[in-house]
Amino acid sequence: MTIRIFVTGGTFDKEYNEIIGELYFRDTHVGEMLSLGRSLVDTKVTTLMMVDSLRMTEADRQKIISSCKAASEERILITHGTDTMDITARELGEAKLPKVVVLTGAAVPYKFGSSDGMFNLGSALAFVQMLPHGVYIAMNGRCFSWDNVRKNRAKGVFEEL
Amino acid sequence: MTIRIFVTGGTFDKEYNEIIGELYFRDTHVGEMLSLGRSLVDTKVTTLMMVDSLRMTEADRQKIISSCKAASEERILITHGTDTMDITARELGEAKLPKVVVLTGAAVPYKFGSSDGMFNLGSALAFVQMLPHGVYIAMNGRCFSWDNVRKNRAKGVFEEL
Amino acid sequence: MTIRIFVTGGTFDKEYNEIIGELYFRDTHVGEMLSLGRSLVDTKVTTLMMVDSLRMTEADRQKIISSCKAASEERILITHGTDTMDITARELGEAKLPKVVVLTGAAVPYKFGSSDGMFNLGSALAFVQMLPHGVYIAMNGRCFSWDNVRKNRAKGVFEEL
Amino acid sequence: MTIRIFVTGGTFDKEYNEIIGELYFRDTHVGEMLSLGRSLVDTKVTTLMMVDSLRMTEADRQKIISSCKAASEERILITHGTDTMDITARELGEAKLPKVVVLTGAAVPYKFGSSDGMFNLGSALAFVQMLPHGVYIAMNGRCFSWDNVRKNRAKGVFEEL
Repeated sequence: MTIRIFVTGGTFDKEYNEIIGELYFRDTHVGEMLSLGRSLVDTKVTTLMMVDSLRMTEADRQKIISSCKAASEERILITHGTDTMDITARELGEAKLPKVVVLTGAAVPYKFGSSDGMFNLGSALAFVQMLPHGVYIAMNGRCFSWDNVRKNRAKGVFEEL
Repeated sequence: MTIRIFVTGGTFDKEYNEIIGELYFRDTHVGEMLSLGRSLVDTKVTTLMMVDSLRMTEADRQKIISSCKAASEERILITHGTDTMDITARELGEAKLPKVVVLTGAAVPYKFGSSDGMFNLGSALAFVQMLPHGVYIAMNGRCFSWDNVRKNRAKGVFEEL
Repeated sequence: MTIRIFVTGGTFDKEYNEIIGELYFRDTHVGEMLSLGRSLVDTKVTTLMMVDSLRMTEADRQKIISSCKAASEERILITHGTDTMDITARELGEAKLPKVVVLTGAAVPYKFGSSDGMFNLGSALAFVQMLPHGVYIAMNGRCFSWDNVRKNRAKGVFEEL
Repeated sequence: MTIRIFVTGGTFDKEYNEIIGELYFRDTHVGEMLSLGRSLVDTKVTTLMMVDSLRMTEADRQKIISSCKAASEERILITHGTDTMDITARELGEAKLPKVVVLTGAAVPYKFGSSDGMFNLGSALAFVQMLPHGVYIAMNGRCFSWDNVRKNRAKGVFEEL
């Protein structure tokens, strides 16, 4: 069983540009994170885009959905900015694909040392191996169905509706 | 649903003693790791022992089994040194408890920065929420049943028999 | 011999705000960094301000100069954003105080793991103990006199004029 | 002015062997640490040996002394285990070379995240650029002459006699 991982950007992959003193995207760290986690799960990583999810367009979301549809794998993990993760999950859920799709992300960039990214990646990879067909968000160690989840922006965590 | 976490030591919790230049155990880092992972899973952490699993005795294993039996929770996560994790899993499996027990550990101490511990803790916490009754080892992003797993000592990874 | 350390902010002390996904200042990490470095140098840390040096005003610089003048210590270390560190150094140099003043900073925030901050703090603390009266910038392991230094913004490093 | 850096091992360069769960030496991290510190000091790094300083032999010390003698550089930095750093410093001091030699080390391995190594390397590099001929130990942000220093083993710090 191969897990397809689609990278879309988000806090997961933000880095610090020391010339201009701002956060930016370069390449994804997901491969490095899987190595660090000594993952032996059979995965294939594809970068679809590298965007802050607040700037994700409807065209971006359509690309994510069509990529999930077109993938030969049944089980798909998507790394995604947390700010609009619930919106993308909803659109994916309504597409009713015969697949298991799990979205995850991070509150703190992986490169900033104190990241929750490794923890979330580990849990998301476990959930995507176990769950039945559907679309889910794996954050804070928990797993939510796409139709019963939102980001609590004040607290920065995910919760049921 | 509350997850009981039993700490037994292992690489997970090793620290560097800078006075004598050797590795040692002090307190568990599991609580700190759950905070770092922004975990919102309802967990209760209990330290049963703090030992290198190569030095784990039969009495230690009996204590682990009786603690699992006595716990009021149905779902139990055990942090454990990897060297004899498969032995403890086997004894727990043969005890046939009506519970979900997942053992996990780390190749590199959490305090040493490049740890797989956060990744494993995330995946173990996901597996323990999802799996049916049984005893499992969650390592390398994968999940093994107690009667079909061993540590490949040359490679430092877990694999099926 | 006591070294006075004046904190003014800068990249040194930037943190990641995980609610809004932006960098910000909270408290200084200089005390924590000195502990981590096992420093036994007699130091007293005072926070004068917590600003990005691009936003440092002339009033801020006057406060820094008057604080250096008023300090009872002869040897003073200033943590400062790198973008305008050379400007503050020049104003301090022209004030011709009978003191040793060393400015230092960081390209990457201390909290982001891969910081040059510990290295710069170590070298600045050494330079401030050794140098004769004057105003200096300690960056990149080197020490520059205030009247012969500028930040090369394209490369993000300090160099002689 | 070029600084010669002689690597002899010590805690600085210890790594964690995840197969056997013990500390060991592989390659030096000094080059990586200089890059991380964005050092622009002109340095040449040579590994003389990779040993725990408790196991350093008299032959090892003679090799260090003769290497310092033979070096074309006037300013030399030596990374060294802290346990016998004062002994090597004494032998170097008694050799009365017309050079500046600064020894430094670390309480915690660089690879273990919370290292004082970056701080010590920064301060040692500053001291070696500034000091007159002699042999010194740079630890804890301070600088000691070879004939007035010892390691306080109970506290793990360096102090005057």
